[in-house]
Amino acid sequence: MINNKDEILKAYNFRHACKEFNGNEIPKEDFEFILETGRLSPSSFGFEPWQFIVVQNKELREKIKEYSWGGEKQIPTSSHFVIILGRKKKHMLYDSKYINDFMREVQELPDEVRDMKRGFYKAFQEKDFNLLEGERAIFDWACKQTYIALGNMMTSAAEIGIDSCPIEGFNMEKLDELLEREGIMSRDDFGVSVMVAFGYRKKDPRGKTRQNLNDIVTYIE
Amino acid sequence: MINNKDEILKAYNFRHACKEFNGNEIPKEDFEFILETGRLSPSSFGFEPWQFIVVQNKELREKIKEYSWGGEKQIPTSSHFVIILGRKKKHMLYDSKYINDFMREVQELPDEVRDMKRGFYKAFQEKDFNLLEGERAIFDWACKQTYIALGNMMTSAAEIGIDSCPIEGFNMEKLDELLEREGIMSRDDFGVSVMVAFGYRKKDPRGKTRQNLNDIVTYIE
Repeated sequence: MINNKDEILKAYNFRHACKEFNGNEIPKEDFEFILETGRLSPSSFGFEPWQFIVVQNKELREKIKEYSWGGEKQIPTSSHFVIILGRKKKHMLYDSKYINDFMREVQELPDEVRDMKRGFYKAFQEKDFNLLEGERAIFDWACKQTYIALGNMMTSAAEIGIDSCPIEGFNMEKLDELLEREGIMSRDDFGVSVMVAFGYRKKDPRGKTRQNLNDIVTYIE
Repeated sequence: MINNKDEILKAYNFRHACKEFNGNEIPKEDFEFILETGRLSPSSFGFEPWQFIVVQNKELREKIKEYSWGGEKQIPTSSHFVIILGRKKKHMLYDSKYINDFMREVQELPDEVRDMKRGFYKAFQEKDFNLLEGERAIFDWACKQTYIALGNMMTSAAEIGIDSCPIEGFNMEKLDELLEREGIMSRDDFGVSVMVAFGYRKKDPRGKTRQNLNDIVTYIE
């Protein structure tokens, strides 16, 4: 265990939305470590509704950049550029093949536990979170889970001195179309949730701004 | 900087969805450290669309439990129980008072930078992410940001040996109503995004299951 709050907080202060990288390459074992913290991230019901596309191909990066005003400098200069996909309704629905296979093969749940879990999951989707009203709510819900992995990967990168930039500044529909055209995903199955660039900063950032703890935390004693 | 990948990964393996806590109390400075990692988490455009309600009151915890099938054991036994709220459309809209005040007072942006940022933000909401079609898409988008803070808080807790459990197993509408009835929030302003319990495990978890890295990562070289 790390058990050093000051050192951990240093990483939180080191991390910023790095707008331009210096072109140095992240060592393979460091990048795999970052992905590993994404892989080990929790998700609702443990269903890991994510895929990570690591785009190292320069031509493809250029094409992605065309639809990504928020990644103008980060996309070409980053050492590793990751598109995080979320799973669509087809897979996330309580009685889908993905969910059934996942409970059996990944979670290795016995039949009766699978049935019970599917029942909870159905009620959750139908009533508790009201996710079945269209295609979007359930996809957004899958994407929420990917933000846990996103946050963890940026923090773990910072903890070993690697910079990052999360990127939502892209046209969702155009990017989905591009990735389908390129044969990287099918829009029936996946959609782009968010993107994140990793590398080493070109220059130091301006100071961090945040609301005070008092403004965002309320204790009910 | 921590710079010790093995120690960091230990924390990822230590963390699990802890279903029951042993009743020991988290020291104040440790819990404040956890909140601080939430506070320092990134969010889209830096707008921090979150509030953290720390529910220590036993009666209120019982009332919350009534609508939270996923928190049956965690809610009463946790040392600290946190409800994470997301901001509603009223606040997140590009020309809202919240956004304008936030850019001026928290981010301390000069007039012309605020105007430029508002323009990007408007285009992002209207076109890129198509967030303005109703109340839900923009609220879900605010909630996605809270999952970054959620993930960071659970990981930072694990890094100092503290257990946690994220909880989505609740009825969103009923819980929103309860918190409004109790005077904790107005449903015009906020909605419950997700909850998270912190404490120390009562017993050891069963092993972690995850898809293999190969099944979730694709390199495009």
